[in-house]
Amino acid sequence: MAQVQVDAAALGAAPAADHALAAIVARRAELGFLELPDDRETARACIDYARALDRDIDTVVVLGIGGSSLPARAIHSALAPAYDALAPRGPGLPRRILFADNIDPASFGALLERVDPRRTLWNVVSKSGGTAETCAQLCVVADRLPAAQIVCTTDPASGTLREVARARGWMCFDIPPPVSGRLSALTPVGLLPAALAGLDVVGLLDGARRMRDRVLAPADNPAVRLAAALHHHHVAHGRAMVVTIAYADGLYAMLEWLGQLWCESLGKQGRGSTPIAARGAPDQHAQLQLWADGPDDKVYVFVTVASRGPDVAIPAALHADWQYLAGRGLGELLDVELAATIDSLVARGRPVARIVLPRASAEAVGELALLLEMTSLVAAPLYGVDPAGEPGVEDGKRRAFAALGRT
Amino acid sequence: MAQVQVDAAALGAAPAADHALAAIVARRAELGFLELPDDRETARACIDYARALDRDIDTVVVLGIGGSSLPARAIHSALAPAYDALAPRGPGLPRRILFADNIDPASFGALLERVDPRRTLWNVVSKSGGTAETCAQLCVVADRLPAAQIVCTTDPASGTLREVARARGWMCFDIPPPVSGRLSALTPVGLLPAALAGLDVVGLLDGARRMRDRVLAPADNPAVRLAAALHHHHVAHGRAMVVTIAYADGLYAMLEWLGQLWCESLGKQGRGSTPIAARGAPDQHAQLQLWADGPDDKVYVFVTVASRGPDVAIPAALHADWQYLAGRGLGELLDVELAATIDSLVARGRPVARIVLPRASAEAVGELALLLEMTSLVAAPLYGVDPAGEPGVEDGKRRAFAALGRT
Repeated sequence: MAQVQVDAAALGAAPAADHALAAIVARRAELGFLELPDDRETARACIDYARALDRDIDTVVVLGIGGSSLPARAIHSALAPAYDALAPRGPGLPRRILFADNIDPASFGALLERVDPRRTLWNVVSKSGGTAETCAQLCVVADRLPAAQIVCTTDPASGTLREVARARGWMCFDIPPPVSGRLSALTPVGLLPAALAGLDVVGLLDGARRMRDRVLAPADNPAVRLAAALHHHHVAHGRAMVVTIAYADGLYAMLEWLGQLWCESLGKQGRGSTPIAARGAPDQHAQLQLWADGPDDKVYVFVTVASRGPDVAIPAALHADWQYLAGRGLGELLDVELAATIDSLVARGRPVARIVLPRASAEAVGELALLLEMTSLVAAPLYGVDPAGEPGVEDGKRRAFAALGRT
Repeated sequence: MAQVQVDAAALGAAPAADHALAAIVARRAELGFLELPDDRETARACIDYARALDRDIDTVVVLGIGGSSLPARAIHSALAPAYDALAPRGPGLPRRILFADNIDPASFGALLERVDPRRTLWNVVSKSGGTAETCAQLCVVADRLPAAQIVCTTDPASGTLREVARARGWMCFDIPPPVSGRLSALTPVGLLPAALAGLDVVGLLDGARRMRDRVLAPADNPAVRLAAALHHHHVAHGRAMVVTIAYADGLYAMLEWLGQLWCESLGKQGRGSTPIAARGAPDQHAQLQLWADGPDDKVYVFVTVASRGPDVAIPAALHADWQYLAGRGLGELLDVELAATIDSLVARGRPVARIVLPRASAEAVGELALLLEMTSLVAAPLYGVDPAGEPGVEDGKRRAFAALGRT
């Protein structure tokens, strides 16, 4: 069966990193996320909840921020049809999922006006159960809604959100205690919105299991290979930035999520490289000038799909100058541009890797999710930092709470 | 009258950069964009077109990529209500504007299915008139549409798109020949979609004129101040990245456009710093760990609004632990988090600047547009590069055309 391919040949050799893999494997129980692909029971519970939900509910708003939004949005964006928000809705049609990850009153206020309160389910997501932004959003909407229109995703035992949910009779899904927010894609954080959108959550787990075997293997390990090469280009060649470029619109959000995985796992003690997510072809017309002709301080990882599904045909050209387009497809054109952009960077000596999904299937997205998670973790021992925790954000939180008079 | 404030005090002193300003002013006619705020006639033509357009047209799709999409989307996103795509439509209501900037058949194909062809106007934007992606999109849709549902924005005289439009009787708006794509916000590239959305295009020009006076002034010049400080932090302190963080969701697209301005104006001859656009508060939960605790290789520019308009009130807290939220507003909370995040970075010695719009008005957005444009241009002489042109992308284009058999 076709699997996600990682082509890192153009990155050159990197030092062995077996010790880094061993360091992460030694913490497997503590990190928790490698066990998630086996949890078919949770997947089933999410599917059952989605099936049993009132068919008049045609919209789901996910209230969550950071790790309570990015992994879920990444999976949804990769698998749900594009322009989801514009799609027709109704009984039997897929539900629309909206991710409200900010407290800007201009945008959140507009959202409250735009959704029909009788047809909307609110999925409140917070691992700690006390995230200020998410609790504030919940306080805004809670008293307007019947209990059946709120479902929480949080720690099974601790946290204020769990207490509130118990008191109010809101349904709750669990985030296993060891799993941190950024690694929660395959918990109900990612699986429940996916199930509510009618996506194939079992396929996600199947793919993740398949990639798990590869990222735990002693040889030909794509996570170790990628992490070692990206780290080596940073410390040995001063390439302090990792530019990831999606050549499929749906995969861009996976790279935004990778940005979080990278920043929070590695950005510690003055170390870590900086992730930048980009989109092809548009960023050929925005950022490529800097990549090709600016400083040689970046590594490039192109992420694409081998088979795009139905192409959009370009019929007859409208002008003789455009004859080269006639009879081709938009996807064909995009693939030609991808190859040309890679060749152009390689010709300038810029280091390039390529991750190719066979197609944008649930299995392939599950594989990619586990690959991105494991790559960011394996890089941590190479940088000499602890991938767990986010100590650098505590000071800002303390300052905000002090200003708000929270004791 | 309140104007956009640039607070760069926490960046410290930077060398004088009067010569850089002089170098750009000397090329004023060639660059062309500084004259745009005076062109009320074009603004009027865009407004008149929008008013005369069939009221049954409730959706506009902009076909364009890079400089033919980013500046227009930046303005639209800053001023149109959020969740525009979900808003009700109909005669008398604002039109929905969708920016289709890619040739991914999965997303463009979905768009074709989602919009009602009888109620949609297609605005085809290409300065050169030969952009491969945009021409391909146009070839896909053109033969399905009556002439009145296509309007082009292109060079007034040259280019294939202009020839096709003439032959087919499509209405055209002009991009003044000296103005390059990334500097075209205040041409019909930005003004026509804004007018079609019912936004205040005259206010945009008014604000831009006001900022023009400030960025041409010999003293207290915010563009010179910012450009000099960002360049100085790069070359003197190794801070090779400029992180811009929008604390208003609508302004994020302005920072994505700034990314293009920065990459294409400065990323040349191995020089230029790297722009990264981020969103507050969400990126406090995704990227802040790296900013605060990772390498000291970045400068931070926070962009926000002094007055957010109507706040969303947080009524009674749902739990005693959340009491600190009760009676506050979401915008108030966001402002507290902004201040705490800045203080936290400053306490770690990270260089921070702040751009504050009095509010998200057309005037302020016009000011901000001109400020971002001029800052990216003034930085070019400091880096010793020519801000015009994008020589680094030509090789990739040649390779793509060769693969497509274009002669």
